[in-house]
Amino acid sequence: MGWNDPASGPEVGDAFGQVLAACWEGGVRPGTVHEVLERDDGYVQVWDAVRWFAGPDEWSAAERWGCEHVIGRVLDVGCGAGRHAIPLAEAGHEVIGIDCSPGAVAVARDRGVRALRTAVEELAPDEGPFDSILLLGSNLGILVDEQQAARSLTRLASMAGAGARLIGSSLDPHITGYPEHRRYHNADHQRSNRRTGRLPGQTRMRVRYRRTVTEWFDYTFFSEAELERILKGTPWVLRAMEYDGPTYCVVLELR
Amino acid sequence: MGWNDPASGPEVGDAFGQVLAACWEGGVRPGTVHEVLERDDGYVQVWDAVRWFAGPDEWSAAERWGCEHVIGRVLDVGCGAGRHAIPLAEAGHEVIGIDCSPGAVAVARDRGVRALRTAVEELAPDEGPFDSILLLGSNLGILVDEQQAARSLTRLASMAGAGARLIGSSLDPHITGYPEHRRYHNADHQRSNRRTGRLPGQTRMRVRYRRTVTEWFDYTFFSEAELERILKGTPWVLRAMEYDGPTYCVVLELR
Repeated sequence: MGWNDPASGPEVGDAFGQVLAACWEGGVRPGTVHEVLERDDGYVQVWDAVRWFAGPDEWSAAERWGCEHVIGRVLDVGCGAGRHAIPLAEAGHEVIGIDCSPGAVAVARDRGVRALRTAVEELAPDEGPFDSILLLGSNLGILVDEQQAARSLTRLASMAGAGARLIGSSLDPHITGYPEHRRYHNADHQRSNRRTGRLPGQTRMRVRYRRTVTEWFDYTFFSEAELERILKGTPWVLRAMEYDGPTYCVVLELR
Repeated sequence: MGWNDPASGPEVGDAFGQVLAACWEGGVRPGTVHEVLERDDGYVQVWDAVRWFAGPDEWSAAERWGCEHVIGRVLDVGCGAGRHAIPLAEAGHEVIGIDCSPGAVAVARDRGVRALRTAVEELAPDEGPFDSILLLGSNLGILVDEQQAARSLTRLASMAGAGARLIGSSLDPHITGYPEHRRYHNADHQRSNRRTGRLPGQTRMRVRYRRTVTEWFDYTFFSEAELERILKGTPWVLRAMEYDGPTYCVVLELR
C-alpha cells in the first residue's frame, strides 16, 4: 500500500458543511468537533470548529478594523456559519451571505442569516448592488491568482454600487511563524510554484471530516506586494490596510 | 490527482511521539495539540493530545477498576507518556514502561517513568519477572489476531512471575455508538475481514501530525467472545472483566 490506497479513500462531499453542522447541532462547544485541513504535501492542520462561530472579540484586530469600515448593504462572500454576517446584521446592515457549501448555508440560515448557495460567478445580478463586499476569514484566498482574481473581482465590481468597498483579509505567507508553512511557501513549494507561474502562497488543500473529504482546491495567501500585483487590471484599488501579526485586512475601492 | 498523490505525501516518522512531545512541551494545555488518527477507509478522527496525560479521574471506570487489580512489579506495554505508569509508581509499584515510539519514551522519561524503547518481542528477559502486565488504553489491540496474540502472549508469559496478572482494555466493536465505526467493523470491512480471516474489529490505521505520518498498523478491537477465542492456545485465561459502555477491562491469569 502506498501512502494512501486510492481504492479505499474517503468519500468526496461537503466536509466543511458537515463540520459546521456538527458543531452547530452540538451547541458550539469547544473540543467537540474538529476540522482537518490537509495540504497537498501531506501536512494536516486541525482546527476546532468553534472558530467558525467566533464573535468579534475573538477575531483578529485586523478583521475588527475591517468590519468598522463596512457601509450599507453587505455581500459576505464565503459566509460560512455567519460569524461576520450576524454581528453586522445586528449592527443594522442588510447582509446577504453566499457560500459554496450547502451545509454552511443551512447552518447560516438556521442562525438567521439570509444565505445563498452560490459561487461569486453564479450570483444573480439582481441581488445587488452592494455597498460592502466581504472576503474575510482569509477569503482573499479564493482570488487564487491573477487570472481568477481578474474574473472574480470584475464580477464583484458589477455587483457593487457607487462608492462600494471590498473588505478582505489574508495572511502574509512570507511572515508566518510556522516553520512548516514557511517551508511550504518559501522553499520546496515556492520553487515549484515559480516554475509553474503560481504565487508563493498558493496552496492546494482540502477539508476532511470523518469519512468525507472535499475536492482539492487552490487558495492563496498574499503578501501586500502580491495583492497589489493581482489587483492591477481589475476594477479595484487598495485604499487602506491594517496588520495584526501576519494577518491583515484591506479595504479596496473601485478605481 | 487521485484521493492522494503518492508522490507528495507526508513523511513517515514518529507522529505519535511528536504529538506527545508537542503537548508535553506546551504544558499539556487542552485545545493546543491534536492527533489525527486515519483509518484505511479514509475516516479521520481527531483527538486532543491531553488525553494521553489524563489522570485516573478522567479514565473510564473500567480502567480504574483494572488498575485496582495491579499487584507487585509492573510492565506497562505501550506506556505512551506514562498516564498509567505515573499514578501506579506513586502508589508504590515498581513500573517499567515500554513503547515503540521514541518520542513517547522520551516524554515518559522526562516525566520520571523508567521507560524503554522496545516492542514486546524484543524486551530483554532480565527485565522480568513482572507481577502485573498492562495493556491499557485499548492496547489489547496490539494482539491483532490469533497468530500475533499467541506470539505476544507467550512472550509476555515468559516475563511473568508466579501468580502474575495481565490487565488489558479494549472496546467492543459491535456495541460502539459511532455509526462510522459500526459500518467499518460490521458491514463493508467485516465482509472483507471475514473473507481474509480477519476479526471484525481489526482496523488498519496510522497516526498523522503536521507533515509526519506513522506506517499503517493493524489494531484490533475485540468483543468478549472474540477475546476468549484468541486466548485459546495461549498461556493466559480470562478471570475477571468490567464494562464501562463499549469499553471494558479484563484481568487475565496464567493457566
